[in-house]
Amino acid sequence: MKQYTVAVLGATGAVGQEMMKILSERNFPVGKLIPLASARSAGKTLKFRGEDVTIQEARDEAFEGVDIVLGAAENDIAQKFAPAIVKAGAVFVDNSSAFRLDPNVPLIVPEINPEDVKNHHGIISNPNCSTIITVTAVNALNAISPIRTMTASTYQAVSGAGAGGPIELMNEVQALGHGKTYEPKVFSHQIAFNLIPQIGGEQFEGYTSEEMKMQNEGRKIMHLPDLKVSCTCVRVPVVRSHSISVSLHFDKPISVEQAREAIAKAPGCKLVDDLAKKQYPMPLDTSDQDIVFVGRIRPDLTDDNGLCLWCCGDQVRKGAATNAIQIAELLIEKA
Amino acid sequence: MKQYTVAVLGATGAVGQEMMKILSERNFPVGKLIPLASARSAGKTLKFRGEDVTIQEARDEAFEGVDIVLGAAENDIAQKFAPAIVKAGAVFVDNSSAFRLDPNVPLIVPEINPEDVKNHHGIISNPNCSTIITVTAVNALNAISPIRTMTASTYQAVSGAGAGGPIELMNEVQALGHGKTYEPKVFSHQIAFNLIPQIGGEQFEGYTSEEMKMQNEGRKIMHLPDLKVSCTCVRVPVVRSHSISVSLHFDKPISVEQAREAIAKAPGCKLVDDLAKKQYPMPLDTSDQDIVFVGRIRPDLTDDNGLCLWCCGDQVRKGAATNAIQIAELLIEKA
Repeated sequence: MKQYTVAVLGATGAVGQEMMKILSERNFPVGKLIPLASARSAGKTLKFRGEDVTIQEARDEAFEGVDIVLGAAENDIAQKFAPAIVKAGAVFVDNSSAFRLDPNVPLIVPEINPEDVKNHHGIISNPNCSTIITVTAVNALNAISPIRTMTASTYQAVSGAGAGGPIELMNEVQALGHGKTYEPKVFSHQIAFNLIPQIGGEQFEGYTSEEMKMQNEGRKIMHLPDLKVSCTCVRVPVVRSHSISVSLHFDKPISVEQAREAIAKAPGCKLVDDLAKKQYPMPLDTSDQDIVFVGRIRPDLTDDNGLCLWCCGDQVRKGAATNAIQIAELLIEKA
Repeated sequence: MKQYTVAVLGATGAVGQEMMKILSERNFPVGKLIPLASARSAGKTLKFRGEDVTIQEARDEAFEGVDIVLGAAENDIAQKFAPAIVKAGAVFVDNSSAFRLDPNVPLIVPEINPEDVKNHHGIISNPNCSTIITVTAVNALNAISPIRTMTASTYQAVSGAGAGGPIELMNEVQALGHGKTYEPKVFSHQIAFNLIPQIGGEQFEGYTSEEMKMQNEGRKIMHLPDLKVSCTCVRVPVVRSHSISVSLHFDKPISVEQAREAIAKAPGCKLVDDLAKKQYPMPLDTSDQDIVFVGRIRPDLTDDNGLCLWCCGDQVRKGAATNAIQIAELLIEKA
């Protein structure tokens, strides 16, 4: 079996670390792994398959001979190195939002639009975390009748802000437990025992960048150019796994039974929907695994063609690292 | 000034205690305060205006000579004592849901439908906590153009489950901090660092009792018999203050500017809406006070006649105790 040289750009961050773990878990055919990070981290080692690998500085030359670059860095880093990656003949599977809406760049959730991968020109984007979880949950319904509008309110875990998010939450909880205060650095406000209804900066008509991703990326992934989405993104004091309360209006009515059946069969989804038995998706239950849990499926009382549901998924795994490696798997299947 | 004999039914609970505090804070003309509770608590004392008052057992005879009974007990207790309260000639301002939808019982938010108070026959209901906060936030918009549909996702604090809620949250946080687990008693699942998307039992088409209150009580308070509401109620690890993400569709379009202006002027509301300055309602900021904060006002991208907003309010105060005492104030104004 062919072995691939894989670089992880931003290997020291939360998503980069998870990518390395999942490459190993899923037995991705890695011949050589190259962790790339800033000059500050170069020379240090990270563990991969139980062995030490040395971090190299991310520089244009570092991509020579690489087959696949998994991007776990911010937009500016992704933009800086994309030309060198493409020039080196590697494929860049990028988790940043830099190229997601570029018409020359496929935006892939492998359970939904795997065929789009063939249209790449060296760059494939990994979608936004909340968007991946939501579209994975609703795609089987879209296959029954196209989604016209979606209203989503998110409940996003602190680890969505990177490795510093959970540390800040725990530091605040501890400080408050001792009657002290803790000056927030990662978030704009205290997140312990609080909610922050802002993720990202203002982008469009009072919506944040994070909120607009649900519409703009949802359109591209589900091939629904006219999809309209109103999203409200809220940071909650949960360590891991994002949850989303979703209302969907379809072209034609879909019954709750149809919806349950479709979601139970949908790849990447698990139906957890028994209110009487107090069973529904909860972030504690969806953490450290790859499946999106879907429940609370019921008619939307505001629209005859509507359904409401609640979904949760691990945003570091399915919402980022696992989805990127699934894309890499598509690449080598088609190779 | 006339002084009133006021009984608090369920005086030892979180809402009963808050009612006693707010009666004192607002200088309600209490001649005599009678805290009522179960036989178990009878004989113990509570503080009112700095003085000890003795808890009496809630019995039919206890209501003789009482002018106003503030109900802070569960439905079964409210139902049990309502006949004796009415027979004694007192007015029962009841925080339970037992009588809220009874056509002979006004359901009042004093900023919205104070005139309904005159239709009482001895019982006036205090609405559901999330409903009070939401309708207080949106009523000024309803006055511009009637609301046709509302989609709401709640983020409800643990104190909404009574005094035991915050204790359980803190016990769980402490146990987890020491690597231990804590068996939940108040909630069905761990609430620390988790979300529970169920409040109340199943009532209608997969919706819980708590979720249906937003529609059924909203209709009655705002005099909108055809209002359609889809609500998703979620318990979050916040100590106090409920938050609600709301999408509203109106008869006619309302601009964001109109909405901001109306909410800034609305009684009981404060406009906190400056995303660029990271200013928006947060539960930490709305706790221990009576005003509903409203922000994140923006066009609903799924409907030309729609708006989205985010609101927070202290559900023990404005969502329960303060609203009940405002109703009592209406009663004595009209007396």
